[in-house]
Amino acid sequence: MKFVTAEKSSEIFVGLVNEAKTKILPLNKASEKKSGSKEFPETMLECIALGNIFIQKVNDLLDWADSDEDVFLPIESIKLLAPIPRPSKNIFCVGKNYADHAIEMGSKEDIPEHIMVFTKAPTTVIGHKETVLSHHGLTEELDYEGELAVIIGKKGKGIKREEALDYIFGYTIINDITARDLQARHKQFFIGKSLDTTCPMGPWILHSSAVENPNKLNIQTSINGEIRQSSNTENFIFPIEEIISVLSEGMTLEPGDIIATGTPAGVGKGFKPPRFLKKGDVIDITVENIGTLSNQIQD
Amino acid sequence: MKFVTAEKSSEIFVGLVNEAKTKILPLNKASEKKSGSKEFPETMLECIALGNIFIQKVNDLLDWADSDEDVFLPIESIKLLAPIPRPSKNIFCVGKNYADHAIEMGSKEDIPEHIMVFTKAPTTVIGHKETVLSHHGLTEELDYEGELAVIIGKKGKGIKREEALDYIFGYTIINDITARDLQARHKQFFIGKSLDTTCPMGPWILHSSAVENPNKLNIQTSINGEIRQSSNTENFIFPIEEIISVLSEGMTLEPGDIIATGTPAGVGKGFKPPRFLKKGDVIDITVENIGTLSNQIQD
Repeated sequence: MKFVTAEKSSEIFVGLVNEAKTKILPLNKASEKKSGSKEFPETMLECIALGNIFIQKVNDLLDWADSDEDVFLPIESIKLLAPIPRPSKNIFCVGKNYADHAIEMGSKEDIPEHIMVFTKAPTTVIGHKETVLSHHGLTEELDYEGELAVIIGKKGKGIKREEALDYIFGYTIINDITARDLQARHKQFFIGKSLDTTCPMGPWILHSSAVENPNKLNIQTSINGEIRQSSNTENFIFPIEEIISVLSEGMTLEPGDIIATGTPAGVGKGFKPPRFLKKGDVIDITVENIGTLSNQIQD
Repeated sequence: MKFVTAEKSSEIFVGLVNEAKTKILPLNKASEKKSGSKEFPETMLECIALGNIFIQKVNDLLDWADSDEDVFLPIESIKLLAPIPRPSKNIFCVGKNYADHAIEMGSKEDIPEHIMVFTKAPTTVIGHKETVLSHHGLTEELDYEGELAVIIGKKGKGIKREEALDYIFGYTIINDITARDLQARHKQFFIGKSLDTTCPMGPWILHSSAVENPNKLNIQTSINGEIRQSSNTENFIFPIEEIISVLSEGMTLEPGDIIATGTPAGVGKGFKPPRFLKKGDVIDITVENIGTLSNQIQD
């Protein structure tokens, strides 16, 4: 199951994408047509917070909608927003979680022994196909980072590694766009990671039931069609179970929390000379089973 | 004007503290009594988002309430919560903004040339007199950091230094409690700064109209009555105007955003040997004109 946040005629709703990725089932409208009452939550955050009840409701709707093709919308008739357009806190980001990326950013000594976490402000989030501001005049070193992102499904603290995957609602793709000059100038990563529009997210959330092992997914980033990053999440230094376990040791994780799991080698700064993003560049990030997140830098 | 978020009989509301700090005017209840309709926003975030209209409404209520003493509540009859119990994003924190603190954490070379910003998760926030978890077993180095905090009052990007103070709704006090061992182990500060209950905030927000110069306020922290930190915000390396200007260069600031402005020398880690927080310790942070934020470590 793939869940989108979508907009049509100024209305924002949560939808389910069909197998062929040609149509969207608008869950609130379908539910209203089925039951006659407006009872479906309006936002992805509310849907996720419902837990298993949400998935049951969706399954019920799918059984019913099979006999009523009219309730589906053609995917080209809606605008996709980020699956969680406005997270309720900053996005957690794991730094240097692939050894080859840690080395390209410095040397073998940069491979972390312990998980490193920084955050991106909620104001950075944009959706699939939305435009990334170039921030011309503020940064000369805008860079891409293709990443698998985890969406937390239920509240937890002190989560054990062996139970960590049960706390995941689903997976999406994040481009952790970074102003390298600001990242270096301000030491702690936050400022260089939090310029407006520097967190493209989407195109949808793939439900966890469709992912057998999130630590074994191909991930690839291309700029204007040229492959720059190509790896597999099996190369994580810290697998997802460990990230969730360490993060939740003293901090409560909540439904809708977003964790970007780090980026492999091949970022612009890793090239000699560096190859930073230019106006008009198109960045495509593909993660196995999930899909492709595509965004263009402002022209 | 001092604004609190308060709880009484399971109801949460925004209130105004009288000059003598003995009584609270519950703004929603007062407004309902005055106008007969429920029209006052329920949360501090909604009040702040109203901008100047909020202050006008409060002034109208005050004129009216003068003749009706019954609408005030004795301050001891309510429970104070953090003025913003659940921020809508992480709290921005400026690191090493007093030279003497930068030196005690390392050496003169640690005095930053550029603003350093990290964040604390919204799940860290607790109010005046609420208990700080000891996180026993997870950290052996829990430390205090008394700080002046700025509450942003209106949306802005690319805010000029000379206009920065106009974007401030008010000021409060934050204790940026830090697990020093986790801060060091995980390199980026976020994990060591985001344990549950490690952001005591309050007791209230002092409206900006009552503060002539936020860059000239005495600040003092004591542990069990012994003064540990004693400084003045005139010792900021980066004054508040510069913090707001730099943060907003590429990132939109929003009403209700919270910026902790950094801590002066005298933290537990600065002593030889270090004097970390122990179970039962009481931390009092006093900022001139604002008041005192007091919290105890779990016994």
